[in-house]
Amino acid sequence: MKAPEINVSPRILMGPGPSMADPRVLKAMATPLIGHLDPEFLAIMDNTQKLLRYVFETKNQMTIPVSGTGSASMEAAICNIVEPGDVMLICCNGYFGYRMQDMAQRYGAEVHMIFRPWGEVFEPEEVEAAIKETSANIVGIVHAETSTGARQPLEDIAKIVHEHDALLIVDAVTSLGGLSVGVDKVDIDVCYSGGQKCLSVPPGASPLTLNDRAVEKLSNRKTQVANWYLDLTTIQKYWGNERTYHHTAPISSIYALYEGLRLIAEEGLENRWQRHQENAEYLWDALAEIDFECHVDEKYRLPSLTTVKIPAGIDEASVRKQLLNDYNIEVGGGLGELKGQVWRIGLMGYTSRKENVHALISALKNILA
Amino acid sequence: MKAPEINVSPRILMGPGPSMADPRVLKAMATPLIGHLDPEFLAIMDNTQKLLRYVFETKNQMTIPVSGTGSASMEAAICNIVEPGDVMLICCNGYFGYRMQDMAQRYGAEVHMIFRPWGEVFEPEEVEAAIKETSANIVGIVHAETSTGARQPLEDIAKIVHEHDALLIVDAVTSLGGLSVGVDKVDIDVCYSGGQKCLSVPPGASPLTLNDRAVEKLSNRKTQVANWYLDLTTIQKYWGNERTYHHTAPISSIYALYEGLRLIAEEGLENRWQRHQENAEYLWDALAEIDFECHVDEKYRLPSLTTVKIPAGIDEASVRKQLLNDYNIEVGGGLGELKGQVWRIGLMGYTSRKENVHALISALKNILA
Repeated sequence: MKAPEINVSPRILMGPGPSMADPRVLKAMATPLIGHLDPEFLAIMDNTQKLLRYVFETKNQMTIPVSGTGSASMEAAICNIVEPGDVMLICCNGYFGYRMQDMAQRYGAEVHMIFRPWGEVFEPEEVEAAIKETSANIVGIVHAETSTGARQPLEDIAKIVHEHDALLIVDAVTSLGGLSVGVDKVDIDVCYSGGQKCLSVPPGASPLTLNDRAVEKLSNRKTQVANWYLDLTTIQKYWGNERTYHHTAPISSIYALYEGLRLIAEEGLENRWQRHQENAEYLWDALAEIDFECHVDEKYRLPSLTTVKIPAGIDEASVRKQLLNDYNIEVGGGLGELKGQVWRIGLMGYTSRKENVHALISALKNILA
Repeated sequence: MKAPEINVSPRILMGPGPSMADPRVLKAMATPLIGHLDPEFLAIMDNTQKLLRYVFETKNQMTIPVSGTGSASMEAAICNIVEPGDVMLICCNGYFGYRMQDMAQRYGAEVHMIFRPWGEVFEPEEVEAAIKETSANIVGIVHAETSTGARQPLEDIAKIVHEHDALLIVDAVTSLGGLSVGVDKVDIDVCYSGGQKCLSVPPGASPLTLNDRAVEKLSNRKTQVANWYLDLTTIQKYWGNERTYHHTAPISSIYALYEGLRLIAEEGLENRWQRHQENAEYLWDALAEIDFECHVDEKYRLPSLTTVKIPAGIDEASVRKQLLNDYNIEVGGGLGELKGQVWRIGLMGYTSRKENVHALISALKNILA
């Protein structure tokens, strides 16, 4: 059986994720295992939760890493909050709005959708009108749309959602650790993210936080959570004081997440946000110089992920292939509505460095010359 | 914020899992990330599937690692096969039979249970009688009960299940890679496992295989799979020829699993089974010498996990604490019915070595002296 040793090329991961993991995170992953109920592991769990609260900017007690990739924390957010009888309004301006819809209907919600073209964001007024029309008691929205590069302002929408006694679920997969999410300040009820974006941690343990309103909804469910693996009513007993076994925690992925969060605490959240913003602006300027145009209005443009329009006459898949094969640079193609129309360039976490911008721009110059 | 560097004690993991990861597996985990659609990663995926088929002893096309711990592959087995209208018979002789029950009822099955005392196994006749009585079209059974240390013979039961046109789902979490599971030879329809037992891989990517009968049941479902993250109808498009994005694969966990499987291929499955059996017998003899008695009849005793009765007058929790704190040895306490009555001693994968048996026995002698 042909099963060669792993020997991967040194990729510069500038796509929509995974981003490059910090070497210190990789080193942490190689730490020998200890048991998931070992007092030393319980201490790492406690500290991981503390650091997650710091990065989410929250005091929420129920703040944990979900034992799976970002999609698992998304499903954990939905399956614990949604049950039959709920009406969920989803603000959809990209691929991940549709994923929310897919999940919410599986868990029995009556789902209503409002739409914006991919790359645009929602105004508070249209969200309010839709809540009134649908009587939604749950609203889902994406803070950082990985498929479009748009950053959705949330403050006013959160106020409106709560004025109508609804809960706000926010997708922060491509924002957490790269720009402020501000769970407590914005007053987000449920927020989830992934490791493989701005936290620079391999996918496998994914941040999730619920505030008191959300925990109350969970506690007052009429039906059991339909999903066993992601059921917070039992998982919380492992992450809480009881330490009751639910499933074996993904030990190495927790090590990695913990080290990634430590790196953020060392850098400081504000410094990290500023680094992401500065390097993104540096990229945007460099793209403009070679006559590339960004897809999203600068006011709503994510620092972590840039969508850039593909100039006419370019075979976009071929250019991406050359970038990967000849320059070891990965950028992402467009997804859904934007397929073939944009590239997605990530500058997330450890990848967000000026030298990577230089590497990409000069490779593009060579290829397109 | 107090967030010290990870600095864990060098534990000898002789509990029910996680077992110790092979150093080569830990090294593989530290490999830099590449994209989940990178051709180099797709090649690793293909080879991982080939090696999984080797270890499962199957030709099943649909053989993949589930993106989560062993409980996630268990739930993937159940949620893809079970739908409302199904009648599932669960043969329960330990903790994980109850977990199957919990999951199966969440996915809408009419669940029937038959029981055996913890540590015993089922006879084919009683399974057949229960199938007739319940008209079950799905039967769930545990090959290697992590809570009891019992090994359930499966050949005759599989024949009976198929004579009644039912499907057999088998939990091989604590057997795969440590003793023969023989998916094709036994004719198991759905089989799942975890990395953290006899594969000596950190929990995070968990083996699952479905034969043609099971795939047909999946294809002919009347209802959508209720779980998004574990939905094989869409996941198979990523692991199959289409390579359609579903969720970001847990890259590092796949690296680890791949390396763990390579180690098994190098050692050879038969050699590995023999090593597990020999070291288990070595442990049983050593335990007998210090007057400890095994809980399970030798005929049905797992080589990977031994339950040993706690002699009268011993404070079992205190002894386990001393083993951990003074000797860096982790053994497991009893679960459920066996709580306080047995210890669970794992000799799985990389942990299955004579020197670990010596370390444990002589530590026990010191503590109990």
